[in-house]
Amino acid sequence: MKAYADCIPCFLRQALEAARMATDDEEVHEEVLRKVMKYLSSESLDKTPAELSKKAHSIVKEITNCNDPYLKAKQRDNKTAKRLYPKVKRMITSSADPLLTAIKLAIAGNIIDLGVSSSYDVEKTMTNVLKTDFAIDEYKSLKKDLDKAEQVLYIGDNAGEIFFDKPLMEYLSELGKKIVYAVRDEPIINDATVEDAEFAGIEDVAKVITAGGGASGAVLDLCSPEFVECLRNAEVVISKGQGNYESLNEEQAYFLLIVKCKPIAKDLGVKVGDLVLKKGGKQ
Amino acid sequence: MKAYADCIPCFLRQALEAARMATDDEEVHEEVLRKVMKYLSSESLDKTPAELSKKAHSIVKEITNCNDPYLKAKQRDNKTAKRLYPKVKRMITSSADPLLTAIKLAIAGNIIDLGVSSSYDVEKTMTNVLKTDFAIDEYKSLKKDLDKAEQVLYIGDNAGEIFFDKPLMEYLSELGKKIVYAVRDEPIINDATVEDAEFAGIEDVAKVITAGGGASGAVLDLCSPEFVECLRNAEVVISKGQGNYESLNEEQAYFLLIVKCKPIAKDLGVKVGDLVLKKGGKQ
Repeated sequence: MKAYADCIPCFLRQALEAARMATDDEEVHEEVLRKVMKYLSSESLDKTPAELSKKAHSIVKEITNCNDPYLKAKQRDNKTAKRLYPKVKRMITSSADPLLTAIKLAIAGNIIDLGVSSSYDVEKTMTNVLKTDFAIDEYKSLKKDLDKAEQVLYIGDNAGEIFFDKPLMEYLSELGKKIVYAVRDEPIINDATVEDAEFAGIEDVAKVITAGGGASGAVLDLCSPEFVECLRNAEVVISKGQGNYESLNEEQAYFLLIVKCKPIAKDLGVKVGDLVLKKGGKQ
Repeated sequence: MKAYADCIPCFLRQALEAARMATDDEEVHEEVLRKVMKYLSSESLDKTPAELSKKAHSIVKEITNCNDPYLKAKQRDNKTAKRLYPKVKRMITSSADPLLTAIKLAIAGNIIDLGVSSSYDVEKTMTNVLKTDFAIDEYKSLKKDLDKAEQVLYIGDNAGEIFFDKPLMEYLSELGKKIVYAVRDEPIINDATVEDAEFAGIEDVAKVITAGGGASGAVLDLCSPEFVECLRNAEVVISKGQGNYESLNEEQAYFLLIVKCKPIAKDLGVKVGDLVLKKGGKQ
């Protein structure tokens, strides 16, 4: 998906928030904004938002001299989500359709997205998703594909959210599926990295790999050959969140996300706040 | 008040919204953003937000070849507000403290601010303000100063909002005050101009002048000598909205506004959404 003009003010807000997490120095915040504006003013919107934001965040990292401005926020969200994990497990076990409930709660975890907003209510979202229908609903197709599949590639999104991915992967693992879980290869916004996967104990249920590319989304031109091969060979691909949708929307993956901004809503033909379970592919 | 780093993403959002009102051409929207970013990347945040946004909007006007992108929106808001005007009058007349009610409803009209948000509920705001205390309350001081004053300078803010200013001016006029109402000298965002003052029949209650300067706020360095003289000689100055606060906050004016963004909230030491009636002046 190409970037929209709306992405520009959003990248700048994001860069400012990241710079503020890295330092209190207001002159540094201004310098970050100036450099990001200089970069974006000569960049093409034909690229994906994930590619453009990668460069914006690399400017933040360089100027603030901080490689992971969101580290504390990620640690906080991991702790909160770890506390909620047993509740998520109970909600799935006691459900009439555990797969659907596990999917919906994995999507609920997608509300933890510091690229979009610094405030969210995860517990409220957990309750809401179970009462809400998908705006795009390809659950039956996903269920059918999963029934036949022996292995699944699950592309993660954010720290914290990873504790909502784990119960879905555990459910699939109990059905005998072999799962590969892809995280980012380096810190970008609050996206989950190997460290987050370790903290969440993902290796107990899936093989953890990095997608490579350093973007907040699996931009294939930048990704590692291992990840691309894994994507090509996977019988089912589950992709979480907006960043992965932006970069992989033409792939035959199942995209699980909460729609959190207008460009994604426009691209999907739905509304901000909607829950989506959509199979991708070239239009 | 100097601009904050947060103003940068906001200027770009504003410029994009303005460009979209002027044309559907997405290439033009991108060009506007590029040019505004180029301008802002070499500009100092020591200026007021009103000065910086003036240039951003002049770029929009130049590139879209449209001098008043908000014209239709202003006409729509004027019509809505005109319909509500009799209700505002009744609410004031039936009130135990008509001056306070007129002031609060004038502030309610300040919710109509397309620089901040394209959606708002004026009628809901009218009800809410009457139940809400000021976060900064210098009503007693304003009342005392008004009791003594023979003439008042009232600096307007937005189209639509002007129909909420009129009842307060009518109340003051009935008390025998002579009122001068200042509007913008040219279209900027949805700020009220001479045309809006004519549509609202302001000349029946006040002498209408333009502040000059072409900014969404009375930036004194840019304002007309007539306006500056009027400001210096006025016994009481009532100033509406954020843009005028940004540019006149060191003046001995009474600032009536709804706080609609974090920089203004931070500057005033209050929260977004708060109602403010504050006397300005050098700190």
